[in-house]
Amino acid sequence: MEAFLEVDPASDFSIDNLPYGVYSSATRGTTRRTACVALGDQVIDLAALQRAGLFSGPLLSKSPDCFQQADLNAFMALGQPAWREARTTLQRLLSSGEGALRDNAALRRDAILPMAEVELHLPMSVGDYTDFYASKHHAHNCGVMFRDAAQALPRNWLHLPIGYHGRASSIVVSGTPVRRPRGQVLSGATDQPVMQPCAAVDFELEMACVMGTGNELGSSLAVDDAGRSIFGLMLMNDWSARDIQKWEMLPLGPFNSKNWATQLSPWIVTLDALEPFRCDAPLQEPGVLPYLQEKDRHGYDIRLTASIVPDGGDETLMAAHHTFGGCNLRPGDVLGSGTASGPGEGQRACLLEKTWGGKEPVRLAGGGGERSYLLDGDEVVFRGWAGGGDGRRRVGFGECRGKLLPSPAI
Amino acid sequence: MEAFLEVDPASDFSIDNLPYGVYSSATRGTTRRTACVALGDQVIDLAALQRAGLFSGPLLSKSPDCFQQADLNAFMALGQPAWREARTTLQRLLSSGEGALRDNAALRRDAILPMAEVELHLPMSVGDYTDFYASKHHAHNCGVMFRDAAQALPRNWLHLPIGYHGRASSIVVSGTPVRRPRGQVLSGATDQPVMQPCAAVDFELEMACVMGTGNELGSSLAVDDAGRSIFGLMLMNDWSARDIQKWEMLPLGPFNSKNWATQLSPWIVTLDALEPFRCDAPLQEPGVLPYLQEKDRHGYDIRLTASIVPDGGDETLMAAHHTFGGCNLRPGDVLGSGTASGPGEGQRACLLEKTWGGKEPVRLAGGGGERSYLLDGDEVVFRGWAGGGDGRRRVGFGECRGKLLPSPAI
Ligand SMILES: [Ca+2]
Ligand SMILES: [Ca+2]
Ligand SMILES: [Mg+2]
Ligand SMILES: [Mg+2]
Ligand code: NI
Repeated sequence: MEAFLEVDPASDFSIDNLPYGVYSSATRGTTRRTACVALGDQVIDLAALQRAGLFSGPLLSKSPDCFQQADLNAFMALGQPAWREARTTLQRLLSSGEGALRDNAALRRDAILPMAEVELHLPMSVGDYTDFYASKHHAHNCGVMFRDAAQALPRNWLHLPIGYHGRASSIVVSGTPVRRPRGQVLSGATDQPVMQPCAAVDFELEMACVMGTGNELGSSLAVDDAGRSIFGLMLMNDWSARDIQKWEMLPLGPFNSKNWATQLSPWIVTLDALEPFRCDAPLQEPGVLPYLQEKDRHGYDIRLTASIVPDGGDETLMAAHHTFGGCNLRPGDVLGSGTASGPGEGQRACLLEKTWGGKEPVRLAGGGGERSYLLDGDEVVFRGWAGGGDGRRRVGFGECRGKLLPSPAI
Repeated sequence: MEAFLEVDPASDFSIDNLPYGVYSSATRGTTRRTACVALGDQVIDLAALQRAGLFSGPLLSKSPDCFQQADLNAFMALGQPAWREARTTLQRLLSSGEGALRDNAALRRDAILPMAEVELHLPMSVGDYTDFYASKHHAHNCGVMFRDAAQALPRNWLHLPIGYHGRASSIVVSGTPVRRPRGQVLSGATDQPVMQPCAAVDFELEMACVMGTGNELGSSLAVDDAGRSIFGLMLMNDWSARDIQKWEMLPLGPFNSKNWATQLSPWIVTLDALEPFRCDAPLQEPGVLPYLQEKDRHGYDIRLTASIVPDGGDETLMAAHHTFGGCNLRPGDVLGSGTASGPGEGQRACLLEKTWGGKEPVRLAGGGGERSYLLDGDEVVFRGWAGGGDGRRRVGFGECRGKLLPSPAI
């Protein structure tokens, strides 16, 4: 299938992708937030298509307001059959063989905008955000640095997805500058706590899983059904303050070291768009308990920039564990994969690991100097994609970009 | 000041209290949720008073819809001057000297309902929920049981308020039954993980602090200003699964052991109502860093049932710490105090401590048998109040009540 709009083959946003977002357009003189999908370097306004009656399938015709909201939560709550109907409808409307949008000049003016001229927002309202710890390599490396080498990998790590509840209010979209936090750290010089700007700002390269439908409190999702509840994936930067984390995290886990910013790419790439890129999830050794055993293959072959390839990335497993005790998930909730480190030194997905706790600085390309941790003004950019150059159209995530501002005055 | 309605002197809800809630009335044939305050055994409908034009002060007259919502978040976002105007207005309208409501029969029928005939809901929409660990006695006792006696109190405990992010979606109101969770625990017999219903369901008696106004991401609240941002307090039961907690909590903190239910009393008692009951907060030894030092006294003399008296209970300190790194708080966010254990054996505020890890069962009064942890069908009831019997009218919280249902089938 070809789009009637021209799409650069190197674009993340082919007609096989159609990721969901929310935009506003200052050039059109409004701050109103509107649902859209990306196609090449254009955004397609879903509210306009819906008002024109073009979502006329059996499911979406019953929800004529689902794209008239400031976020995608209402659409996501409709469930997988409705998501698939929307995808089929959009691929048809945007294809070269269909005239309903292509030949309607007024609707085209309304519904198709250059991406360069719009502002992109968080596509969903996030009720709760959970971060997991799925990479064995990341967990092992952190264990060596925060505890000791002999017991680096916690024993429970092999048996259950370790995770913690994060802070939903401080989730920001790509492009939002983040401010170096202040906090309490243990001074190495005096062995006493001091309050100062964080001296060890780090990023964590992760994939975020966005829940579409949820579950009732006290019920749970079976591991092989959890995939149907997941709407899609995004890139995530779990900004981290390592010195604050080291001092605060025992016994109840990370708190102020993690709650000052978590950044997401603006597009949700649906699992349906990623379906051609399914692959085996890593083998689980020792075998996990039956409630976590999967019949299907739940990994996706996604490339992340700097040649870092995700190691764990198994969102359905995480969703099943999360709800097994009865915790309810809601549309728009975010589950982070945990830092996506691989086994090699070139595959360490945060500076804590890459510089081995700041002791082995990395040299930036292009004369940017050395870094143990980030300096004010540094910008962190993540990219990720599947396909492209292998006979399949590229399905990409766009970018997750954030610039570090100085700490406020003490 | 006397109310024109009769109020039992033993009631938690004197005219000096006027706690905020949200009700619906099946006897009036509607599920619509409406803002109210409690007075004796009646609820006073704030939407009806507002439609009648009775919130005519300079601040609230500019927000004529603030009580026309299904939750109190819009009212709470108006800030302390508006909260004080509402309190003054309501005390005047409900006093024996004022006829505007007393002498208007139609309005009285609309706006005054017996509490026994309404259903009470969570009064606010909770964006994020944080639980602290403010009782030194609780922190020490848990340290002995989850780690070891030699290093029971983590060193950082003395220097900063330790807390973790909880799960907002599973917060339920008093009266909602909660279901025993299932989960992974380490079997004592085989030293291998097994999946089973939790065998150590516990409660934690806590005070919850409800944020009124918030702060912008990247800014922070000064410790002496944080009190102005807090709307009020509630009773909180942090339901806990101790066997799941013990296996999962290292290194990232409690997760499934805590995210299956957190229960709140239906009424928010405002800080203005609690003002006469201010007292000194416990002395901090060693002294804390300047950003956590307070000029004012921030404790409240609140009694909790079973003669358990809160030990830490210093919410302004917690809010200041939470935002110091730049994390934003939003109206309706909940901060839990942590289990409110005192120094004595009779002041241990959860079964983990009371039964010393299940090893010393407690005998229930009235022939209810012994408990190490809770049995299916057990109901946990918390009560709390200030004043009463000391020449000051009682300012109480009502109750936080929850019944434990059996686990779902495995
Ligand atoms: Ca992380
Ligand atoms: Ca607690
Ligand atoms: Mg973060
Ligand atoms: Mg809880
Ligand atoms: Ni949360």
